[in-house]
Amino acid sequence: MNRHLIKRHIERADAQVINRLGEAGTATVHEAIGRVGYVGPFLRPIQQDTKIAGSAVTVLSHPGDNMLIHAAVEMCGEGDILVVTNTAPSTHGMFGDLLATSLMARGVRGLVIDAGVRDTADLRSMGFPVWTQHVSCQGTVKNTPGSVNVPVILGGVTVQPGDVICADDDGVVVVERADAAWALEQSDARIAKEAVMRDRLAAGELGVDIYGLRQKLIDLGVEYID
Amino acid sequence: MNRHLIKRHIERADAQVINRLGEAGTATVHEAIGRVGYVGPFLRPIQQDTKIAGSAVTVLSHPGDNMLIHAAVEMCGEGDILVVTNTAPSTHGMFGDLLATSLMARGVRGLVIDAGVRDTADLRSMGFPVWTQHVSCQGTVKNTPGSVNVPVILGGVTVQPGDVICADDDGVVVVERADAAWALEQSDARIAKEAVMRDRLAAGELGVDIYGLRQKLIDLGVEYID
Amino acid sequence: MNRHLIKRHIERADAQVINRLGEAGTATVHEAIGRVGYVGPFLRPIQQDTKIAGSAVTVLSHPGDNMLIHAAVEMCGEGDILVVTNTAPSTHGMFGDLLATSLMARGVRGLVIDAGVRDTADLRSMGFPVWTQHVSCQGTVKNTPGSVNVPVILGGVTVQPGDVICADDDGVVVVERADAAWALEQSDARIAKEAVMRDRLAAGELGVDIYGLRQKLIDLGVEYID
Amino acid sequence: MNRHLIKRHIERADAQVINRLGEAGTATVHEAIGRVGYVGPFLRPIQQDTKIAGSAVTVLSHPGDNMLIHAAVEMCGEGDILVVTNTAPSTHGMFGDLLATSLMARGVRGLVIDAGVRDTADLRSMGFPVWTQHVSCQGTVKNTPGSVNVPVILGGVTVQPGDVICADDDGVVVVERADAAWALEQSDARIAKEAVMRDRLAAGELGVDIYGLRQKLIDLGVEYID
Amino acid sequence: MNRHLIKRHIERADAQVINRLGEAGTATVHEAIGRVGYVGPFLRPIQQDTKIAGSAVTVLSHPGDNMLIHAAVEMCGEGDILVVTNTAPSTHGMFGDLLATSLMARGVRGLVIDAGVRDTADLRSMGFPVWTQHVSCQGTVKNTPGSVNVPVILGGVTVQPGDVICADDDGVVVVERADAAWALEQSDARIAKEAVMRDRLAAGELGVDIYGLRQKLIDLGVEYID
Amino acid sequence: MNRHLIKRHIERADAQVINRLGEAGTATVHEAIGRVGYVGPFLRPIQQDTKIAGSAVTVLSHPGDNMLIHAAVEMCGEGDILVVTNTAPSTHGMFGDLLATSLMARGVRGLVIDAGVRDTADLRSMGFPVWTQHVSCQGTVKNTPGSVNVPVILGGVTVQPGDVICADDDGVVVVERADAAWALEQSDARIAKEAVMRDRLAAGELGVDIYGLRQKLIDLGVEYID
Repeated sequence: MNRHLIKRHIERADAQVINRLGEAGTATVHEAIGRVGYVGPFLRPIQQDTKIAGSAVTVLSHPGDNMLIHAAVEMCGEGDILVVTNTAPSTHGMFGDLLATSLMARGVRGLVIDAGVRDTADLRSMGFPVWTQHVSCQGTVKNTPGSVNVPVILGGVTVQPGDVICADDDGVVVVERADAAWALEQSDARIAKEAVMRDRLAAGELGVDIYGLRQKLIDLGVEYID
Repeated sequence: MNRHLIKRHIERADAQVINRLGEAGTATVHEAIGRVGYVGPFLRPIQQDTKIAGSAVTVLSHPGDNMLIHAAVEMCGEGDILVVTNTAPSTHGMFGDLLATSLMARGVRGLVIDAGVRDTADLRSMGFPVWTQHVSCQGTVKNTPGSVNVPVILGGVTVQPGDVICADDDGVVVVERADAAWALEQSDARIAKEAVMRDRLAAGELGVDIYGLRQKLIDLGVEYID
Repeated sequence: MNRHLIKRHIERADAQVINRLGEAGTATVHEAIGRVGYVGPFLRPIQQDTKIAGSAVTVLSHPGDNMLIHAAVEMCGEGDILVVTNTAPSTHGMFGDLLATSLMARGVRGLVIDAGVRDTADLRSMGFPVWTQHVSCQGTVKNTPGSVNVPVILGGVTVQPGDVICADDDGVVVVERADAAWALEQSDARIAKEAVMRDRLAAGELGVDIYGLRQKLIDLGVEYID
Repeated sequence: MNRHLIKRHIERADAQVINRLGEAGTATVHEAIGRVGYVGPFLRPIQQDTKIAGSAVTVLSHPGDNMLIHAAVEMCGEGDILVVTNTAPSTHGMFGDLLATSLMARGVRGLVIDAGVRDTADLRSMGFPVWTQHVSCQGTVKNTPGSVNVPVILGGVTVQPGDVICADDDGVVVVERADAAWALEQSDARIAKEAVMRDRLAAGELGVDIYGLRQKLIDLGVEYID
Repeated sequence: MNRHLIKRHIERADAQVINRLGEAGTATVHEAIGRVGYVGPFLRPIQQDTKIAGSAVTVLSHPGDNMLIHAAVEMCGEGDILVVTNTAPSTHGMFGDLLATSLMARGVRGLVIDAGVRDTADLRSMGFPVWTQHVSCQGTVKNTPGSVNVPVILGGVTVQPGDVICADDDGVVVVERADAAWALEQSDARIAKEAVMRDRLAAGELGVDIYGLRQKLIDLGVEYID
Repeated sequence: MNRHLIKRHIERADAQVINRLGEAGTATVHEAIGRVGYVGPFLRPIQQDTKIAGSAVTVLSHPGDNMLIHAAVEMCGEGDILVVTNTAPSTHGMFGDLLATSLMARGVRGLVIDAGVRDTADLRSMGFPVWTQHVSCQGTVKNTPGSVNVPVILGGVTVQPGDVICADDDGVVVVERADAAWALEQSDARIAKEAVMRDRLAAGELGVDIYGLRQKLIDLGVEYID
């Protein structure tokens, strides 16, 4: 049965680990954990060159109704990222500079929302980063119940409250809370490996050789011609 | 019957009022006038951090044909915004730097178009702001009749010639000409109210308390759990 | 029959001509060559204010598989633009900073891809320009054969290896290799003509007069009213 | 200001005229009245070979909330078509077989909705025709106010309560109430003209000759070659 | 870490319960279980008037690669529904009449797929029902690993192997296996309640009265006018 | 340079071969010729259970302008399929029952169009099959030049006049004229092979065994578990 719940307390991953996952970036983390957790290309940043990670506080709302976002604010703390989902597609501007002011007062790092936001110029100048599907000045109501800190699905990925959200110019990746330390380890390994690779490629070596693809291509029936 | 008309003279709202509606911004004005007039999330600016208002000079064109935009130029004056709509969806780049040069020479403030524009780098460097559905270098013809300064529908909102167009990073809002002064009054009231609210939220007060949502949530069957 | 081919050598247009087509820009070139060659509004730059041209090295890949991009690198040289197409729609981030490093080491000028890219912040800071349909951190596999330097179709336009790709803020235009010199000639003529037109329009002359549209409008049944 | 209104009484066009507009069909009526009134290709029938017209009873709802549809039922009578619009895009199944039962009991002829419907198999077997943007079994709430029998915008066309809605396999066309008799006259004339044309074309005459396009094509620079 | 698994054995709900959920239909079941489990309006049937339920056998594939569908066949049995998802959006025709022949030989009831299918005329004449996002004759490869009978996300809903899939003209609803009996109970109750309601509405009673909405509308500020 | 041409005479493939390619169906032909020629999932039939092939007579039009379709009629003969493309996306209903009457009088088999059509109920009852992107009653003008029987690009595939168009419930496939006989040969071989396969699968054999995928899956790292 579908109860509406607001859960006050959630577990979070280690703050240090979260911060370093943020620095690693979504492409690295997504690769490092086995190419899972990416929420898809339709959630885009409203700013450039911002790279963060934080603990998910989740919201499930009715389209065009932001009452539960208001309810979620007090569940947010230092280092969190608010993740807002809807029970159906929505283009509403469900979030603006007032809610951002409130979240910044609590140390929240950003917003990920599968609907729309407004006051985007203000949000950028306040330094509050947002990943969203739409920008829209259309206002919302406060009439229909929903939930806070329940599992939600964001662009084809399950987000549990307390999961680590990584977000940057390439999109949003979700790391399960229990996997955070391992994910960082894998990411660090990948970063080290990529640094070596970058040097070799910059020096003119070819991926087709490094990855041994030449023979594979021929085995697959590809013909080299002049 | 569907006549093609070019109307030379239109009524405009008070210039002072228009300018101050521009400063208020679309989200504020849209809220202030009762959440109407927003043309939807698919008309996006090609620039950032521009916030204007002006009087609508309207165009109704055939897709991929910009003859009526040329006809509209001389109907535009100081403080106007050109609003171009099409009889069917279009991705054409119907407007570029030459038309912008012509409009700037007449004091026009910007363009809102439900098709596409081109020369976007030039438009940005000229300081001519545009809200559009597409960017496309595809050129247009000049063959099919249309109208200037007739009522048009832009993204689900009726625009009468002389209505006030507000446009910024959050999109485009239409204020009926007769409502302009009242809309400004409402916007000013809202801005004042929001300033107070912003201070309270920044100080840590919660929207859920300020708006009295706690009891409402419980009345709607939402359960707080730990 | 559909063979998978990797063609090593391609013909290129004159380097001088290519460079000057890049400076002319897509809108000018597209107009100059008779309004053909534009690949449509869904391939967008990840950067602003970059304007390039180069010789197409083409790739045809399976969705979500970038093995052929790796194979294409060694076919690329100074002044080329890599053009990646897929056998079906794809949102994958098929290209990132490592491949860009490799291409920059060879003097490649940029990428046009009808799928997605990742590491976009890095690509911008490296100065490697990209035109793409999606930004996505989702990784790819290297399993399915494809081709390099075969004719491909990009957004409704045929691209032959060695064709000139012009790309800027307005999108991407393809000029057939054999037409490059003629296209430049036409573009130069158009630029000269537009400069004159720009001055006249800036001085307040009207397009409706310059293009002789007043009578045409009336002949088409358009009525001027007050 | 945006008041929520439910208007009890509306004017309707002549019943005879409405019925005959229904028989004429949308393509004919749309042409006859000067190519206006078509609501666009995104409202599609859930059934085939149904061709109706009726008087619009209009609804403006919040996305995912069908309270106002319930409120509208008693404003509907013999020969009406319910026209449901939303303040923002919605995919919800806002209407199903129970509401159809209620409307059929009042002699309503069909539904046009810019969101979604459900129970589509039942609606077809009940013989209640629907034009909709989506089919979706997702249920709605009854929390947010809206209006009945106010002017609404449906797919870029204004619908006044009492306007004539024509709907068939080709979509939906709106005829202003005051124009209904004239629209029928024009439609009848067109039908007569098309019958003659159909015979001529069936006999092998060519449109290019009948419409005198041969010379026009040549004047426009088209060359006939072998 | 992202392992590729093919799980041979899954638990299924009671066959009797499943069959009766199929008869109840998606709109009823979705409502009965609290408005959850609906996979969205983008998965549509290729046939009309088919209403089924079955146990989910799940597949997770690479776009344009149907090797795992082949691997899944032997995991399917009497009364199952094959649920195919992809790691990224795909339009490929990943399934056709041969795979349907194979599944029908095992008693499988239908297919739900978030990509495309082909041989649709044959599938309809064979009586093998399909819910899909696209119809496409484009063929697939068999190169990239994936999984069978792992949890997948279909249109924003988690599907565990063995969950009950209900599918009809209104779309697809997922019922968690453990909830199947309860869902049927709730559905039966709802069907009974709706039968009464249908009679009352058919007799001319109004939903606005039955649901007590008149007062609610007025309390929400809606005004009745004449 | 972009000239507007109407070419009177085109070469066609052998009529017998064309007819038999029509019977083979798009999925078979597409597979048989190496998975090329498919125009994508966005061109859909307005009817069910029709399976045809014919010689392409091609049209390139301006959006919302059907003058060139009229010009193309006299270039069509027995067994042809009219292929209409546009210089930019269009939703217009560019074709209806009068043009179909004219084409049927000449023995034309059907229409493929990347815009919209109207009079769809009539077209179905006349037995004139259509594959289209949109259904729309919106009328067109006859003002802008275009071409007949030039190479066009349809959904990412080049169509030369006289190429064989195969169309059925799964979409549209283009076979180059010179490949028609070979394509039929390949299709016949495939049909024979599929008949054998169908029998084996119906008898309960598994594709995973027939195609030898079990070992391949394990080699790719897929694990079978219980």
